[in-house]
Amino acid sequence: MGERVAVLGAAGYAGAVAARLLHRHPHFELAHVTARSDAGTRLDAIHPRTRVPLELELYDPERHGAVDAAVVAYPHGAAAPVVAELREQGVRVVDLSADFRLHDRGTYEEWYGEHGAPGLLGDAVYGLPELHREAIAGAELVANPGCYPTAVILALAPLARARLLGDVVIDAKSGVSGAGREPSHGKHFVTVDETVTPYKVGAHRHTPEIEQELGGDVRVTFTPHLVPLAHGELVSCYVTPAREANGVRELYDEAYGDEPWVEVVDDPPGMQEVRETNFCRISLHEDPRTGRLIVFATIDNLWKGTSSQAVQNLNLMFGRDESEGLAT
Amino acid sequence: MGERVAVLGAAGYAGAVAARLLHRHPHFELAHVTARSDAGTRLDAIHPRTRVPLELELYDPERHGAVDAAVVAYPHGAAAPVVAELREQGVRVVDLSADFRLHDRGTYEEWYGEHGAPGLLGDAVYGLPELHREAIAGAELVANPGCYPTAVILALAPLARARLLGDVVIDAKSGVSGAGREPSHGKHFVTVDETVTPYKVGAHRHTPEIEQELGGDVRVTFTPHLVPLAHGELVSCYVTPAREANGVRELYDEAYGDEPWVEVVDDPPGMQEVRETNFCRISLHEDPRTGRLIVFATIDNLWKGTSSQAVQNLNLMFGRDESEGLAT
Amino acid sequence: MGERVAVLGAAGYAGAVAARLLHRHPHFELAHVTARSDAGTRLDAIHPRTRVPLELELYDPERHGAVDAAVVAYPHGAAAPVVAELREQGVRVVDLSADFRLHDRGTYEEWYGEHGAPGLLGDAVYGLPELHREAIAGAELVANPGCYPTAVILALAPLARARLLGDVVIDAKSGVSGAGREPSHGKHFVTVDETVTPYKVGAHRHTPEIEQELGGDVRVTFTPHLVPLAHGELVSCYVTPAREANGVRELYDEAYGDEPWVEVVDDPPGMQEVRETNFCRISLHEDPRTGRLIVFATIDNLWKGTSSQAVQNLNLMFGRDESEGLAT
Amino acid sequence: MGERVAVLGAAGYAGAVAARLLHRHPHFELAHVTARSDAGTRLDAIHPRTRVPLELELYDPERHGAVDAAVVAYPHGAAAPVVAELREQGVRVVDLSADFRLHDRGTYEEWYGEHGAPGLLGDAVYGLPELHREAIAGAELVANPGCYPTAVILALAPLARARLLGDVVIDAKSGVSGAGREPSHGKHFVTVDETVTPYKVGAHRHTPEIEQELGGDVRVTFTPHLVPLAHGELVSCYVTPAREANGVRELYDEAYGDEPWVEVVDDPPGMQEVRETNFCRISLHEDPRTGRLIVFATIDNLWKGTSSQAVQNLNLMFGRDESEGLAT
Repeated sequence: MGERVAVLGAAGYAGAVAARLLHRHPHFELAHVTARSDAGTRLDAIHPRTRVPLELELYDPERHGAVDAAVVAYPHGAAAPVVAELREQGVRVVDLSADFRLHDRGTYEEWYGEHGAPGLLGDAVYGLPELHREAIAGAELVANPGCYPTAVILALAPLARARLLGDVVIDAKSGVSGAGREPSHGKHFVTVDETVTPYKVGAHRHTPEIEQELGGDVRVTFTPHLVPLAHGELVSCYVTPAREANGVRELYDEAYGDEPWVEVVDDPPGMQEVRETNFCRISLHEDPRTGRLIVFATIDNLWKGTSSQAVQNLNLMFGRDESEGLAT
Repeated sequence: MGERVAVLGAAGYAGAVAARLLHRHPHFELAHVTARSDAGTRLDAIHPRTRVPLELELYDPERHGAVDAAVVAYPHGAAAPVVAELREQGVRVVDLSADFRLHDRGTYEEWYGEHGAPGLLGDAVYGLPELHREAIAGAELVANPGCYPTAVILALAPLARARLLGDVVIDAKSGVSGAGREPSHGKHFVTVDETVTPYKVGAHRHTPEIEQELGGDVRVTFTPHLVPLAHGELVSCYVTPAREANGVRELYDEAYGDEPWVEVVDDPPGMQEVRETNFCRISLHEDPRTGRLIVFATIDNLWKGTSSQAVQNLNLMFGRDESEGLAT
Repeated sequence: MGERVAVLGAAGYAGAVAARLLHRHPHFELAHVTARSDAGTRLDAIHPRTRVPLELELYDPERHGAVDAAVVAYPHGAAAPVVAELREQGVRVVDLSADFRLHDRGTYEEWYGEHGAPGLLGDAVYGLPELHREAIAGAELVANPGCYPTAVILALAPLARARLLGDVVIDAKSGVSGAGREPSHGKHFVTVDETVTPYKVGAHRHTPEIEQELGGDVRVTFTPHLVPLAHGELVSCYVTPAREANGVRELYDEAYGDEPWVEVVDDPPGMQEVRETNFCRISLHEDPRTGRLIVFATIDNLWKGTSSQAVQNLNLMFGRDESEGLAT
Repeated sequence: MGERVAVLGAAGYAGAVAARLLHRHPHFELAHVTARSDAGTRLDAIHPRTRVPLELELYDPERHGAVDAAVVAYPHGAAAPVVAELREQGVRVVDLSADFRLHDRGTYEEWYGEHGAPGLLGDAVYGLPELHREAIAGAELVANPGCYPTAVILALAPLARARLLGDVVIDAKSGVSGAGREPSHGKHFVTVDETVTPYKVGAHRHTPEIEQELGGDVRVTFTPHLVPLAHGELVSCYVTPAREANGVRELYDEAYGDEPWVEVVDDPPGMQEVRETNFCRISLHEDPRTGRLIVFATIDNLWKGTSSQAVQNLNLMFGRDESEGLAT
């Protein structure tokens, strides 16, 4: 058995998938799972598909600081102080919240409120392996990307690097698990079934994260929509090129030809094709009438969009093959 | 009882809804329903919810030309010759196909192939009551708009009139009934369930229809997506204004304040809100970071997007209250 | 305008459908809608499809006792005292809760706890028009049936009357709206999507109601299942006949031949066929290998299963045509 | 690499899952995939989630008879002659069709028509490992059970062995993939969405298979229902015990305590809990009012109901750990 890993906040959807993947991981050992309101219950009683027979514990800094690594699946704001506590004890952390994704404290506080551990911002590496593989391998604190940013950044990075991104409109579609497990009117089956609804128009917190990673002066219009399915995410990116664009497909083949978890395909991809996998599937099109580039990318919001990507990052942080434990 | 109306092609989804609405209409009499492969069967055996007990007949120009009006629910290309036959006998027609929507024969033939009755193009009125109410009232041939154009044109007409439409990206989402009743792999439940898939990227035939109605020089990028639900349509329109835009909401209130079937609302609408109604529901937003306008519009693709709008047009063509028979 | 009707508890699904139907009713006037937590909001803001522009009010015995009739859409137990208050003021009541469905107080208290207004039990008529049309017409307090009992009793009444009911197993399937609008883990989209789950096995409170209406000594095994759809209900009834059963179809044709809202059909019906209607659709089959009778019945749980049936009852109570306002 | 295996008929749902599992299997080598109408296409173009990059070939007895084993995913009737051909060449076969499931040729021909290779009936072993593990290990032809029989037999075998099965009613619910990939009106998304429909009432071909395995004189009423989801199956079994039943739970614990792929749980299971796994999950209840036993069992119809069970059988036939390649 290899390093011992704890998943904090394992009763939520993201934490549960992380626990499931780590429990069956050939190297890591899932040492603890924690939760607040469900402490005392076994994880597989709440999330049978994990088949993780561990009992959910209340978080205890001493007990849970004695592991080698932790995946922190806490809400934004609540994560920072716990991450700080774990880091002080030398635990390597993959944080699923937004707390350490934005390098700029001012930008963070504009979108999320006061930061709980600003001193750690400089240590955090943005955990998108396809862009920051080496930095992740050397990091002790990895800020796991948001689900939308994962898809959008992978869809647009080759264009960004080639300075082809002019005007960018992103229309995103996400399944309901992206909104979390807490019951609410907006997640009631009857509310979501047989409908599509835009939300947080012009104000979604993933916007600054996307712009940070795509590079300085890109401004995107990002609009998410809730669609009637459990998990899956598709982003439709409409790009007016900054200059004449030739050989665009080659940019993608170069960028992703050797990537194990990015597939560049010809036909527009659907969410089903990546369901419960760590794959991001991308297609590239040109609107011949307007010269606009259209890039689609799809991921499973709970896998590549969150928890399998966290495992990919853990693998890198501990010198393992980054695909270990992710085959499906 | 009022005028006698036939629905040709009533075994498909659109024809069935038209027949259902006309059968219960307080004024018109549903005289005939026709179908090719299902002739001899009662309509309510195929589409129980219509509760139309009429037997589907094979189309017979003589028999079905003896009515006052006809709704033609044939595929593109197949409609034109039948419409010509009916018009020769003086039957007033609402045609649900694309055959008479585009004023320009060249544009039609570029997207659809040879036209079967080009001599009638000059007679046809584009059947969007909110834009062409008076012309419809005087028309004998009405080209019922496509489902996507109905939503998009209603969403953008106030901006088009104010010459505010600069760059336009339209990301559309539609339920599966929009693809018709003919079985195919693409409409198999297992293909569509739990996924969203873009289709006809940069090449959907509704594009020229949208551009015709929005006015000469507007070029739109229009991309439809299939979503896992039976009927409903949402269009998300991203507009870079042609000039500084003030008082935009007022434009919509003026345009639609007296319209019985257009609702301008504050929150982004969902498809459920208009399901099985003749309503189009629109909301208007500004992305404060980019200055872009975002307009959402939702309709039921089989109702306002097709068949209840056909009844609205029939009401106008025969001098009735345009809302007759449409209350829900 | 006719009698003034209030809907108490209109923010829930059942209350909202009742308000929608009464608002568009050609005779009754929807005078008030009430709700606890949503008071002050317009009903169409919470339930856009109702298109009822009335503001939800807090219940006020004086104000809401000044109507001619009320539909009470309160939870079991909470309804009884309010119904008593309304009755004292002479208001005719259709109560959607279980509080007045069981004639026997002891049985009620065994399944639901103490009864809040036992003195009214003798006045209440069980509101299934197909069984108790005349009594309903003369009643001032009608206990609207539960959704499952509506389907089951209509499915089995002809057999019960002919004393053919031997052993009875009922396997019921219901959409999620049957569980109410209150958010919970069990109604979260992600919980319900892509699954079927039995619940309240051997202990559902609709059991005694079914047995009361089918007659003295019948004992049924009733097991409901939650299925991934918004509304609709199908009951599959497996009957071992008490004696040799001949001419069973004739029993159904006799029982329902003149009923406006019961359809006896040949093929097993699906929920779609009755969605958003007051219809109950029934089919009858024999298992040739075992001699068992299989009866399927489907309704929309929010319509014939609750609120359109409430309007059907109100029509009867006020001497109107029982189908008034129910056409779809 | 171990034995070379071909999957014949890999373009259908069952064949595709078998190919996916064998392609990633740590021991077997997926040597060929075949299909009729899709020959020449890569399997991952039709079924992306398989991520099997092999090209579909036309079946060629010589080429495909040169493997060690084959999974035959052909329709009933079409399988038998191909199985015979393969067996003549010494290929070990797991047949997914019904052609070799019924020991009695007469019963087969009553339900399916003439048998294409009756001489092999005596060689075939019914491939339910929990009942026939040893026979499977020694078999060269395994008849993989139907999906419904897998769930029903596992649900009822402990009661059958204890001779507790009196009267049995089985109400089954299945996702749409169970009906196959061929497009049809009945599998169109719009037909299946938001509804539940019983089918093949009193006449489903899985009935004799269930009765054969439960033992001589048991007669069951078996009624399947189509539910709106892609894959998953739940059977609700209502058993009137043949005699007083005590210690029933113990029978299940004994039967399945050591089984790796059967879980006996307390609460009624839902299909989600076993999705894309080889698990069968069972719960056992008593209706205290009628003394009836109610047993629920759920499986994924394409996994334990078909293709992962085929791999479980292959593992046994080649002396591997029966769970190899099935972890999820």
